[in-house]
Amino acid sequence: MNIRNYKTTQERRKAIEKNFTVDLKNIGQSLIDDTVAQTRNCENMIGFTQVPLGVAGPLKLSTINNQQSTMYYLPLATTEGALVASVARGCKAITQSGGVFVDSHRIGATRAPVFYVGNLEGQKRLQDFLDTHRQELKEIARQSSGHLTLTDVTSRGVGTYRYVRFAFDTQDAMGMNMATIAVTQMCEYVGKHTGIRCISVSGNYCVDKKPSWLNVIDGRGIQVWAEAVIKKNILHTVLKTSAQKIFDTWLAKCMMGSAVAGSMAFNAQIANIVAALFLATGQDVAHTVEGSMGTTTAEVHGEDIYISVSLPDLMVGTVGGGTGLPTQREALSLLGVAGGDHGKNSQKFAEIIGGAVLAGKLSLLSSLSEGTLARAHARLARGGKT
Amino acid sequence: MNIRNYKTTQERRKAIEKNFTVDLKNIGQSLIDDTVAQTRNCENMIGFTQVPLGVAGPLKLSTINNQQSTMYYLPLATTEGALVASVARGCKAITQSGGVFVDSHRIGATRAPVFYVGNLEGQKRLQDFLDTHRQELKEIARQSSGHLTLTDVTSRGVGTYRYVRFAFDTQDAMGMNMATIAVTQMCEYVGKHTGIRCISVSGNYCVDKKPSWLNVIDGRGIQVWAEAVIKKNILHTVLKTSAQKIFDTWLAKCMMGSAVAGSMAFNAQIANIVAALFLATGQDVAHTVEGSMGTTTAEVHGEDIYISVSLPDLMVGTVGGGTGLPTQREALSLLGVAGGDHGKNSQKFAEIIGGAVLAGKLSLLSSLSEGTLARAHARLARGGKT
Amino acid sequence: MNIRNYKTTQERRKAIEKNFTVDLKNIGQSLIDDTVAQTRNCENMIGFTQVPLGVAGPLKLSTINNQQSTMYYLPLATTEGALVASVARGCKAITQSGGVFVDSHRIGATRAPVFYVGNLEGQKRLQDFLDTHRQELKEIARQSSGHLTLTDVTSRGVGTYRYVRFAFDTQDAMGMNMATIAVTQMCEYVGKHTGIRCISVSGNYCVDKKPSWLNVIDGRGIQVWAEAVIKKNILHTVLKTSAQKIFDTWLAKCMMGSAVAGSMAFNAQIANIVAALFLATGQDVAHTVEGSMGTTTAEVHGEDIYISVSLPDLMVGTVGGGTGLPTQREALSLLGVAGGDHGKNSQKFAEIIGGAVLAGKLSLLSSLSEGTLARAHARLARGGKT
Amino acid sequence: MNIRNYKTTQERRKAIEKNFTVDLKNIGQSLIDDTVAQTRNCENMIGFTQVPLGVAGPLKLSTINNQQSTMYYLPLATTEGALVASVARGCKAITQSGGVFVDSHRIGATRAPVFYVGNLEGQKRLQDFLDTHRQELKEIARQSSGHLTLTDVTSRGVGTYRYVRFAFDTQDAMGMNMATIAVTQMCEYVGKHTGIRCISVSGNYCVDKKPSWLNVIDGRGIQVWAEAVIKKNILHTVLKTSAQKIFDTWLAKCMMGSAVAGSMAFNAQIANIVAALFLATGQDVAHTVEGSMGTTTAEVHGEDIYISVSLPDLMVGTVGGGTGLPTQREALSLLGVAGGDHGKNSQKFAEIIGGAVLAGKLSLLSSLSEGTLARAHARLARGGKT
Repeated sequence: MNIRNYKTTQERRKAIEKNFTVDLKNIGQSLIDDTVAQTRNCENMIGFTQVPLGVAGPLKLSTINNQQSTMYYLPLATTEGALVASVARGCKAITQSGGVFVDSHRIGATRAPVFYVGNLEGQKRLQDFLDTHRQELKEIARQSSGHLTLTDVTSRGVGTYRYVRFAFDTQDAMGMNMATIAVTQMCEYVGKHTGIRCISVSGNYCVDKKPSWLNVIDGRGIQVWAEAVIKKNILHTVLKTSAQKIFDTWLAKCMMGSAVAGSMAFNAQIANIVAALFLATGQDVAHTVEGSMGTTTAEVHGEDIYISVSLPDLMVGTVGGGTGLPTQREALSLLGVAGGDHGKNSQKFAEIIGGAVLAGKLSLLSSLSEGTLARAHARLARGGKT
Repeated sequence: MNIRNYKTTQERRKAIEKNFTVDLKNIGQSLIDDTVAQTRNCENMIGFTQVPLGVAGPLKLSTINNQQSTMYYLPLATTEGALVASVARGCKAITQSGGVFVDSHRIGATRAPVFYVGNLEGQKRLQDFLDTHRQELKEIARQSSGHLTLTDVTSRGVGTYRYVRFAFDTQDAMGMNMATIAVTQMCEYVGKHTGIRCISVSGNYCVDKKPSWLNVIDGRGIQVWAEAVIKKNILHTVLKTSAQKIFDTWLAKCMMGSAVAGSMAFNAQIANIVAALFLATGQDVAHTVEGSMGTTTAEVHGEDIYISVSLPDLMVGTVGGGTGLPTQREALSLLGVAGGDHGKNSQKFAEIIGGAVLAGKLSLLSSLSEGTLARAHARLARGGKT
Repeated sequence: MNIRNYKTTQERRKAIEKNFTVDLKNIGQSLIDDTVAQTRNCENMIGFTQVPLGVAGPLKLSTINNQQSTMYYLPLATTEGALVASVARGCKAITQSGGVFVDSHRIGATRAPVFYVGNLEGQKRLQDFLDTHRQELKEIARQSSGHLTLTDVTSRGVGTYRYVRFAFDTQDAMGMNMATIAVTQMCEYVGKHTGIRCISVSGNYCVDKKPSWLNVIDGRGIQVWAEAVIKKNILHTVLKTSAQKIFDTWLAKCMMGSAVAGSMAFNAQIANIVAALFLATGQDVAHTVEGSMGTTTAEVHGEDIYISVSLPDLMVGTVGGGTGLPTQREALSLLGVAGGDHGKNSQKFAEIIGGAVLAGKLSLLSSLSEGTLARAHARLARGGKT
Repeated sequence: MNIRNYKTTQERRKAIEKNFTVDLKNIGQSLIDDTVAQTRNCENMIGFTQVPLGVAGPLKLSTINNQQSTMYYLPLATTEGALVASVARGCKAITQSGGVFVDSHRIGATRAPVFYVGNLEGQKRLQDFLDTHRQELKEIARQSSGHLTLTDVTSRGVGTYRYVRFAFDTQDAMGMNMATIAVTQMCEYVGKHTGIRCISVSGNYCVDKKPSWLNVIDGRGIQVWAEAVIKKNILHTVLKTSAQKIFDTWLAKCMMGSAVAGSMAFNAQIANIVAALFLATGQDVAHTVEGSMGTTTAEVHGEDIYISVSLPDLMVGTVGGGTGLPTQREALSLLGVAGGDHGKNSQKFAEIIGGAVLAGKLSLLSSLSEGTLARAHARLARGGKT
């Protein structure tokens, strides 16, 4: 059996079922159209994986530049019982306390080819060329796609290699494919004019889908900060804990625990929320790796708690990739960020992720500080009600 | 609107649609049963996110203990065009070269509460208690679940905190919930007999869903190694490259590039393959963060290439969590690892992941070494045929 | 001029002076005997570098196992004005508060050769050999030196390489040379019986003189913990600060600052104190790199402060290396730990380092919390009085 | 006994000797003048620690900008037998192969206070102030010392903290004290005009004397690159090895070994050479921690080997600190870099360190590749001749 001989999703599925004597009925049980998916999103398609989608909210969110607040229901696709309930609880506590405040900064999609420069002289030669041909490189980027602007070029030489990190504004697209196409053309241009060969269009100095200090320190995609102050009485009624208990848990776990474990992530459960939001909205879920690298802070203010999260690296988009798929697009619509709007949608989306992450983290820290985590899981994962 | 007032998936979806004037038709377009999902996997469920599912294969795979080989078709749920095609190409090259060889070792699910011991004397007192009550702790684990065995206890003291990392054999379950429930009971037991309080049942020394050197060094879940030797003519015909080119790309990118970027992941694209397999088979996709931390090696053997991957931390299961959902279970069945079999299924599944990762990595390194990555993306992501 | 043609320290110095028209008078201005130094410690010797040696103390120190306390004057060789004064102030505050309490644990000198095993089968074969020949390996170590005992063997395979970390009890010697000699013989033994070749007797998995998470997590040399509670009035009179201020500084600097900087060292100034003590006592100062990787904690107790330090990796000795040199041996004598005493001296010495580090750190955190750091430096480094 | 009651080095030493019944004769056996040392470099001074000083060379060194080469004899203060001999051998091989080529770039001394900004609005407010008052900050730096120029200000906010990293050109001084004094004044200025309080003049984002990815990625002090190509016959005659063997050792040890150990240092023995040069020349030896974080590369060119080292973080000076002490100044004179020369001397000195590190590394990798490391140590450390 050669899977590439079959032309439709159904034919491929039937062939696999027959060949492996396996029943893939549910994978075929979808009423949505697979025409686009099988040509754009997935080769050798045999159907759909269906992941439960829940909502948590409302979450009141304001940007620090625009004091107007908006209410959001967060779409979370997950198979892990208790996650939606946990985020929902965090949303409730935050919203009742006045909402979450967010800020963001666009670093852009980065792609870093590695060049073979041969020696220190070659390092200088390549760097000089990059410094003196910025305009030409910008033009190559511009011509490769109307949605792409070269915004920064940094580089690092070691031995015979030079890693050049190109950063792009890709507006509302996550933009890795665009960036890769543009960088490929730039590498050809560099090669033609300098004779310096690109070994690989990605030299892992991008750094794509790998945990790395470079991304934590310099940022990637969109950087987001979110903060809230939770009042004493809400800590008591909604979260069943206190400011001091949350602080103690944060310090012992998110700071000291992460420090002694050699972790890059000084937080509680960023990856859970990032993964569920990414999945629901058609992001590349492998970017959860980068999204997980955030830092939480907590501070006792009287009997209230100030809590914040800093996310240095959210690679997200509202157009392209999986965002155009039927269910994913609807989830983006629910957040009011579907489609392109000159980069505003992707940035707003990133800020919502910041708020959602803060909600999830607040709720988990509360559970941990009270020793109820296991009980929540036991109850919900065995079919309990929220 | 309070989402918790609605009882069915459909009612909740309708309420959200009305409240936000948004159309969630496709999220509702599924023929599969949501009864279990909404009670076990997802609170406030409003439908399903549907992710295209493709297959790559066949992949010939042998364990080093049992020379018999098996052919697999890998189920990959993804929205990123070119991924399935890339893995498929890697499978073809590996299978034609005699297949991938794998080995694995079970570390187990780990959960690490942080205790407040107060001072150095308290450190000693807690450690002594743990050393002299191992049997009792084992018994608590045994009674909390029939599928759970306490296999190791390591700990680390710093200041007034002590982090105790309990490792469990959870057979075919990924096991974090089980482990958390058992550890909660152990903490209560410790507290009752020593007066030493658990600050948090998770002290981030577990380390769950965060990139960390502790997990890279000591491992977590199941450790997997996979290797293959790709023959010169297959490098040429299937992968359009050469052994030397793959080696050069690996060294400049996976080793030196990751080193200078401060990365924990010395590889090319582990996260992509892990995420797609996790999603298709009902794993917790947030565990992609841990799964991404692997190391690739490459070595020129004459004109052939030896290539390997070492994955220190795969938190996977074939029962529990999302593995029982309709489409996910079918994907596991396609691999012959659905359900429980005394831990054999989860370990076999982890080994298949190892093989799949090797296939994906080989293909990507080949593309990079030939400069064809951008072209593949441009073609496939715009609706081309594989 | 070939420096190796000259036979004495003086002849070499004269030759250099003539050749480079440079005056090295002071390098020759020593009354101590250079006979041993030039044959054991330094090739091509031309004289002595003279580093100012100060003392800080008394520091009251108790081990948690033996409640008897001892008073120490710490020998610190340094060229950095204000360092001795800073440690002295910390000693005063600690001693007046009842002293520092310490504990320690010996991991041992580790040396990790890397073997070429070729593939997964080779990995298994080497591991099996190591598992079944532990007794023989112990015997090789024993015969190579009477002061050396093999205590642990751990290993890690990746691709065609296997890193085997041998740990040794080297009693009162730091022991790297002994360990290297023993491991070289073990590698020959392994090679002869398995055909598996050692690529390098050090595979950087030791990890010697490099910052590494492996050493932080698993420890190396001697691990030390030190703690003290500083009373409110002493914080006020001696350190001119308060418990809350020290805590705030510690949290913002040692924890969060180190976290966002991607540091392995969650502390204030361990390296300064370790370097000065190492230099005064004839340790290998390059081991300061490992010694710098410690973690500080702070906790407000009413209006007192609990402060601690955890040092996972002190490679120290009281015999061998530079410890036998005239001035260095005297510094060890001042601490009562010169020479060998079945490992007791080196462990006691490591514990004293723990106490000294705590004193230095407490003083610096106090200065920082009060904004007086720059003033202290300005005054002392320009010739002020302590 | 209160050590501060004694006025001279000799009186203090006598008091300690009497109080502890210990003989510190050799610590007193120096003919050099201690007047300056005891007022500027070391409080509570009781004498000198004397460290054997050897020389290695000649080393032929050229900068890539100025093709003229210079011959250097490297002063190395060490107590570790075999180190000088090893560097000497590396110098010989490099010099006979045409010498080492170096390049360097000044990042400057960095000091990063942490401010308490309170929330996201405070983050913005502080950043705006820094952006709009750069000229005033520069002026404060200029007035605090004639040798200090503010060259860069970068910052990072997390929660209620903002870390602001000020970089200074400090010409030929290492400059930490100057930088601290200037930053203290800047913090006062910021506080007066914004009301935003500096928690600590050092927020560990500097990052001083701690291993950190921030310093590896952004650099600190002076960055240096050094490279050489060693000819086949010299590999054979001087180093008793081959290009392929050095490459194999480098790949298994410096790259893969460091990667799996979670190290920040992808090299062989940088710390040894940095420590010995720092000690001989009056640098702050605690900066060895930063100096150790370099990356080595190796590449086979036919039967020759290209070898390089990249040092991102050398905090060095030729004036101030310990550089004015009698023996230390002579060592700097031997290198022709004693005293100030508008920053040229410190940069030249950093480049020499790069060359020396390359020599040491080449020699060690050669020994390791041939299995002779232990033999060299056994012979030299027991009193053999080089």
